[in-house]
Parts: sequence; C-alpha cells; structure tokens
Amino acid sequence: MQAPPFLAACRREPVPYTPVWLMRQAGRYMPEYRAVRAKLGFLELCKRPDAAAEVTVTAVDVLGVDAAIIFADILLVLEPLGARIEFAAGDGPVIHNPVASAADVDRLTPVAAGALDYVAESVRRARAGLKVPLIGFAGAPFTLASYLIEGGGSRTFLRTKRFMLDDAGAWHALMERLAVAVRDYLNMQIAAGAQAVQLFDSWVGCLGPDDYRAYVLPHMRATFRALADTGVPAIHFGTGTAALLELVREAGGDVIGLDWHVDLADAWARVGHDVAVQGNLDPVALFAPPDEIRRRVAHILERAAGRPGHVFNLGHGVLPETPLEHVGVVIDAVHELSTRS
Amino acid sequence: MQAPPFLAACRREPVPYTPVWLMRQAGRYMPEYRAVRAKLGFLELCKRPDAAAEVTVTAVDVLGVDAAIIFADILLVLEPLGARIEFAAGDGPVIHNPVASAADVDRLTPVAAGALDYVAESVRRARAGLKVPLIGFAGAPFTLASYLIEGGGSRTFLRTKRFMLDDAGAWHALMERLAVAVRDYLNMQIAAGAQAVQLFDSWVGCLGPDDYRAYVLPHMRATFRALADTGVPAIHFGTGTAALLELVREAGGDVIGLDWHVDLADAWARVGHDVAVQGNLDPVALFAPPDEIRRRVAHILERAAGRPGHVFNLGHGVLPETPLEHVGVVIDAVHELSTRS
Repeated sequence: MQAPPFLAACRREPVPYTPVWLMRQAGRYMPEYRAVRAKLGFLELCKRPDAAAEVTVTAVDVLGVDAAIIFADILLVLEPLGARIEFAAGDGPVIHNPVASAADVDRLTPVAAGALDYVAESVRRARAGLKVPLIGFAGAPFTLASYLIEGGGSRTFLRTKRFMLDDAGAWHALMERLAVAVRDYLNMQIAAGAQAVQLFDSWVGCLGPDDYRAYVLPHMRATFRALADTGVPAIHFGTGTAALLELVREAGGDVIGLDWHVDLADAWARVGHDVAVQGNLDPVALFAPPDEIRRRVAHILERAAGRPGHVFNLGHGVLPETPLEHVGVVIDAVHELSTRS
Repeated sequence: MQAPPFLAACRREPVPYTPVWLMRQAGRYMPEYRAVRAKLGFLELCKRPDAAAEVTVTAVDVLGVDAAIIFADILLVLEPLGARIEFAAGDGPVIHNPVASAADVDRLTPVAAGALDYVAESVRRARAGLKVPLIGFAGAPFTLASYLIEGGGSRTFLRTKRFMLDDAGAWHALMERLAVAVRDYLNMQIAAGAQAVQLFDSWVGCLGPDDYRAYVLPHMRATFRALADTGVPAIHFGTGTAALLELVREAGGDVIGLDWHVDLADAWARVGHDVAVQGNLDPVALFAPPDEIRRRVAHILERAAGRPGHVFNLGHGVLPETPLEHVGVVIDAVHELSTRS
C-alpha cells in the first residue's frame, strides 16, 4: 500500500506528483464556508465538532487538495490556561486579561483534562469523512506568548520583547507552560487521528537570531522532541524567518515551512536537504491572472527541482478576498505541472 | 582636515570611533520635540523650515549623535504629484485619492518647480545650526507607490501587489514617475546642503526576490546612478529585506541599511565588504535595562569587527514610547565601546 503523497513528501519519499494543501483552505474566500459562518460565530464554529469537521472536509472536496487541516484556531489552547479571548468580527482576536508579570504567569492554570476534547472530536469526525491525511495543529509557544502578552495582534511586539528582556525567568516559565500545553494538545489531536501536525510560529520572525536562540529555540526543541516519539510528521511554520532558517531547522520539525520572501531553492539548501520543506507561493499571487499564477507555480516547482520532500503551499494563509477559481488554478497547476510520467 | 566620522564611515575610511545616529531621533520620545508638536501639527511642522530645522538640530544637541537627518516625511513628495494626504493624529497617514489604475498614474502631475522649496529651506537652516553632517532623505519609489496605491499603510500590500501583477506597464510608469520625483527631490536637498542622503524603502521587504528583481530593482538602480554624480554618499534602507540583501546591494547605495532581523556580520558578508553598512539594533532593545542595552551594542560592534564602513543605527526608527535616557545609553555605549585607542 502506497503512502498518500502528502505523508510521503513529509518523509522525503518519492511521490507521483507534488502534494499541495493551503493554509486557511477552509476560509472566508469559500462560499461553503461563508454559508456555515452565516449561522455560527467563529468560536462557536471551532467548538462545534460537527460543523468544524464539515468545513474541514468540504474544503478538501471543493479544492481537491492532498491534505486537510482541522478547522480550529491557534488561540483555543489559551482559554483553558485562563485567557479570556474574544474573536471580534472584523478585528483580530482580543485577550481581555493579558499577561503582564511573573505573577500573571504563575496564575495560568494547567489545561484541565477534557477542556479541549471538542477539538479531538472534530478530528475524529473529520477523519471519518476524509480520503486524504488530516493535519492537526497548534500555535507555537512564542506566538502564543505574544498574543497573551500583547492582548492581541501587534506590529512591533513591544510588550512581548519587553517582557522577555525585563524578566527572562518569567519568560522561560511562560514558554515552558505553553510548550507543555502545546505538546499535550498536539498529542491529543494525534491520538484522535491527526496524521501530521503543524506548529504555527507565525510571528517569531520579529526576533533577530540571537534572541531566537536564547528565548525560543530551547522551547521549540523540547516540543519537537516530545512529538518525535509519535512517529507523526511535524511541520514547523513561521513567517519573516528568512534570517532565522538555520535556527528554525535546528529547533526541529520534519518539514520546514517557507514563506514567499525566500527563494525556495536557496532556503532549502540553507535548512538542509535532509529535511522536507513546505511552501512558498505569495498569497497575493492568487489575485494575478491564471496564466501568471501558473507561471509562478511552475517557477516554485522548478526551484524544488523534483527533489523528494516538497509539499506545495502558500507562504501564509489564503486571504479572505481571494477569488475562489484562482485557488483552483493553483491546485490544478501544482498537480499537472509536477506529475512524474 | 579630517572628514567627520559619519561621512568617513559612509566612504569606508578609518574612523576614531563608530559614528552613530538614529532613525527618527527627532521624535515623540523626546520632550523637546513634544513641546514643539504641542504647538504645531505634523504636516505644519514639516512645512515650517524654522521649526523643522530646530527639531533637527535639537535632537543632535540633546543626544550627541554623529549625524542629523532633516525633519520631514517620506510622503511630502507625493503632495505636489497630486496626492491628497492627511496625517491623522494617532493613525497612520491617509491618502484620500489613491492610485487605482493606469489612468490615475497618468493623472499624476510632475512636481512643480518650488513645490518642495520649504524642505530645501529647512536643510539650509539646519545646516547653519549643525556641527555634524546633515542627511537628506526620500521615500524609495516602491514604498511611495505602496502608500499611493493602498491609500495609507498596509499589512499585506494586497492592492500594491495586485496593481503590479495586473498591469506591469502602469506599474513601471508609476515607478518611473516616482523615481524622477525622488531624484529631483534629493538633488534639491543636496544642493541646499545635505551631505548624505538616505532612501527609505521601508516596506519593500513584502516582496520576494523575483518580484523585487522585476518590479523594483531597475528603478532603484536608476535612482542611485543619478545620485552617484553628486559625490554625496547614499544610504539604501529597508526592513524585512533579509532575503533580498544581495539584490538591494545590486540596486545601489554606498551604505546598505540592515534591520535587526539579520546578524550584522552575516549580512555584511552577503552584501560585500566593498560597501558600508548601517544598523542594526532592534528598536525594542532600547526598553531593556541599560546593562542589557550596552551588552547588545557591544555585540553589534563585535560583529562589525572594527571594519571601516560601519554606521551604527537602529534597525528601524526610535519608537515613541522609548525611555529618553536609554537613547542616551545607546549613543554613549557606541562611542565608548568603539573608540580606537
């Protein structure tokens, strides 16, 4: 029995064609998703396993991608830790009780057993409806810490970095708690049926190499080591990491996510060909005319040079305004242009 | 007669100590600046040469930096091109008539003679009050285009990239017009007394290498070539350019600006030691305790290894909330730790 192309590529095994999936493939650009969201709020949708499984599976059915990713949010794990999160329509998420001190870190509660069972149930239900592998995911400790400390999104990450610089002890205590929560959460998703996991360190690119090495890398390494025993491939994703790639690789992961700022061939050489890579089309390229989209897909495939271990994806999530038919153009172009005869 | 250390460093000549200045050194973190702003709106301040020269010179007097930068804004050049700009308090700038089509590009008016004379007058007045070199500056064509097209700041640069992808002809026409305006504007500042110039391509890091090469590089190269005849050093600054550095260098500039995402030694090796570099302390590091600030300054100086051609700066502008005394810590640490005995 042949492994599905997505899992084979994660393990750098030969594949009949380059597998492709898209971050945020179940999202607002898709009419079927908007129809569900017309009835359910974002958080409500995350917490309704039937609906979360439905949008997960529908995206695969509509697009013909090679992997599903469970519909959820990286911030869900923060709720049982004690964060009061609000997903306000239009704006980004808000955390009403941000972490501002070592005492606040101490007040975080360990995730209670069962608190995130609804995600496990979404995974089980989605698996039942899927013919392609299902990816579980979590936010990485740094990115979660940034939301907890900033109380939401940020451009400068001023509070996060100040916290890190002012009290390294409290910072590492926070990162350790988050790393434990993330590890348990991913293990739960794997136990429920997730066949791969992705760690989203979406905002870690705000750090320079020295800070990454001192304040983030040890916690990521611990997290990936804990996952290694599961035998499930782990994808390590970040954006703005062009100057961090060697360290990101050192931190761990079977597949390194690349954003569109880097040339795929250069980046792969830097992280090493003994690891798989995922990426790296600019999400904005999906607004270009279909011919241009195909040209860009072809270019990325050329840069991957048919080397085993490339999972095609965007460099970040699908943007809400993306034309639906252009998403299809990407998927079809990847399959068509990469098929080994 | 010895050249001032800042100009010597720009030309990679030996210096008695590493010169330092800070982007946005005349800014809201400084009480003297806030006192002026209590009386004058931002645009009003830019357009009052007496006041603009005053805040320019005061920052140097307070901080003891090795260069001044004329107080102005990168968007000023867009007004005489026909943009209706508003600097709303608290928010970023807004352009009320964004460029959305080739026809909008055609409607841009060439900058009328005298339209920016107030900046030349600021330069003349500031020069008269300064003992250190004065830097003139302009936004680079891509960054200016992004404001014109987005109608303000952006996170995704969706409209800018769409414009670029949808109509390459209109894009290049826009970039050419902006490059001409920028060149004339910088030449005017040089004629008025600016002893160096900096081109701020602040947001160009949103592009991948292929798009930079196709859509930006030729216009930057033309701009830097036009400046080369002046004999005045040109600084080429951007952020998020970790994956673009070789191309940024190829585009031109005597000094390449580095943000804090990159290691200075690695980045300098990549752009080549036959060019000077400027940078690259994280602006957020100025919120750390003084000992930690000094440690980070020392680290950057070590990475520069005493090689001629390093201008110390932050990786981006001073943040408004920065403690004033910590800015002084940086300046003093650079001078003290870099003095050649």
